[in-house]
Amino acid sequence: MKIPTYDDIRKAHQRIDSEVHRTPVLTSSDINEMTGCHLYFKCENFQKTGAFKFRGATNAVISMTETGALEGVATHSSGNHAAALALAAKKRGIGCYIAMPHTAPKNKIAAVKSYGGKITFCEPTLLSREETLVKIIRETGSAFVHPYDNFNVICGQGTAAKELLEDCPGLEALFVPVGGGGILSGSAISAKAMQKGIRVYGCEPAGADDAYRSFQSRKIIPSVNPCTIADGLLTSLSEMTFSIMMNQVDEIFTVSEKHIITAMQLIWERMKIIVEPSAAVAFAVVMQNPDLMKGIKAGVMLTGGNADLFNLPFAKK
Amino acid sequence: MKIPTYDDIRKAHQRIDSEVHRTPVLTSSDINEMTGCHLYFKCENFQKTGAFKFRGATNAVISMTETGALEGVATHSSGNHAAALALAAKKRGIGCYIAMPHTAPKNKIAAVKSYGGKITFCEPTLLSREETLVKIIRETGSAFVHPYDNFNVICGQGTAAKELLEDCPGLEALFVPVGGGGILSGSAISAKAMQKGIRVYGCEPAGADDAYRSFQSRKIIPSVNPCTIADGLLTSLSEMTFSIMMNQVDEIFTVSEKHIITAMQLIWERMKIIVEPSAAVAFAVVMQNPDLMKGIKAGVMLTGGNADLFNLPFAKK
Repeated sequence: MKIPTYDDIRKAHQRIDSEVHRTPVLTSSDINEMTGCHLYFKCENFQKTGAFKFRGATNAVISMTETGALEGVATHSSGNHAAALALAAKKRGIGCYIAMPHTAPKNKIAAVKSYGGKITFCEPTLLSREETLVKIIRETGSAFVHPYDNFNVICGQGTAAKELLEDCPGLEALFVPVGGGGILSGSAISAKAMQKGIRVYGCEPAGADDAYRSFQSRKIIPSVNPCTIADGLLTSLSEMTFSIMMNQVDEIFTVSEKHIITAMQLIWERMKIIVEPSAAVAFAVVMQNPDLMKGIKAGVMLTGGNADLFNLPFAKK
Repeated sequence: MKIPTYDDIRKAHQRIDSEVHRTPVLTSSDINEMTGCHLYFKCENFQKTGAFKFRGATNAVISMTETGALEGVATHSSGNHAAALALAAKKRGIGCYIAMPHTAPKNKIAAVKSYGGKITFCEPTLLSREETLVKIIRETGSAFVHPYDNFNVICGQGTAAKELLEDCPGLEALFVPVGGGGILSGSAISAKAMQKGIRVYGCEPAGADDAYRSFQSRKIIPSVNPCTIADGLLTSLSEMTFSIMMNQVDEIFTVSEKHIITAMQLIWERMKIIVEPSAAVAFAVVMQNPDLMKGIKAGVMLTGGNADLFNLPFAKK
């Protein structure tokens, strides 16, 4: 298993630079006052397809050989990776096939379709997703681009933290949501290489705390019946992301559903930007750990903005 | 009546520079593709208090003499100017008294209170607002800061377009919402002085089209029973804003409620930022005038982001 280095992320950045947005870093004096620290929000909700996933998908698709890309690409995903891969494939002019749980948010299904991705619906279990994908690949001859257990995908995801550290040198901590671990592991590699002494924290919903439990027990514990509004963080770690996490991440924190929703609402109200529930998890961890935060300068990864505007969680509290 | 010049706006900018945010200018490749032009959105929804109004209020409050400011400031406003004046007064350490229609959006009432503004509720008519204000001023001795019929307020509002033109030289057109005309007239003065040949367009809800009718008939026609979701654009022009509009604005366009809501939803979905209905009116005009827009480089003023998250208009369509 070849683990990405910071040099691999640098090369990925050169490769995808003209294809992805260099997203802005926003700050909020309101939120700094409220939390007692200096927060720098990396706005991947403004990334193409509305999420950081477009970085990894683009790097994976661009890195394929002419022959390897000939029959298109395929994946299973509940949303953002699917849309990202569909757009990356469309830009290269190849097909894209997606196994998608029928429970995926409607807006995410619509996005995949709008980029020309061909969806086969399946049950919302890892087994059903994988079986459906195997069938798709057999029929189409397409190449599997795993949402996070993929060298080039992780390198692409690592470019977001690289940009953040370039724009905001001197960060003392970086908070990143963790689902399958792609953005967390890529961010950790960049951050630890670029900023001496920076602490990297994984942030996870308590209702899908497989990364927390894996970190504590030092072995991969798969996600079983995860239940959280953060629909992008339901997946389990892979060997690759687990290995990077154990070596480069300082701690994993979990937060309740209530705290995720409150954090999401605060970002909407105070920063006037739209983030999806999964993207609010890192800020929720910041809010819940004031002792850790006092006076420090920290980065917060806002992973995506594909919230369902017709189904907002605030009103349901 | 002393009309502001661009030089006055330059001086105002120096005065308020350290107090207001230099808000970002965002672009969206999705929206550019959809409209066939190059749009530069000036994000005053990210301004302190969530709207451009903080620029004018700050300039007015800072410009007051020690004696003049002693008894505080007062105004009538349905929301954003009230919150802006309350924060500007708080920063100077003086009182702020607001006559506010009881129909004002709840989130805007809450914002005024959070900045320490003292609210007296009144009926949602200009007469009731003015009568209530006179009473407040008599009781408190505070100084009236009109939301737009005020030299220093207009100079402050003009700094938003100044920043936009500094960041994006070469704009061929600028689209700005018009209610009382503060941001439109300030923007027009800056734009016409800074960019040769630029056209400045006022953008108004059809349900509150007093600026359109005033522009056509070349005399002030007050707003009577205006009805629009764009609650920041209900007010009538003043002598000062009318005069600037007649001299510096190229045209006024109106749009329907349906188009305002669609424009607002598009900004939320594609740009992942929160704008209030009034702020979507300029983009709605762009969407409804494709012939005017083809291939041009245009600025769009996003005036504020204080949308009521618990009462979104999309779902009601």
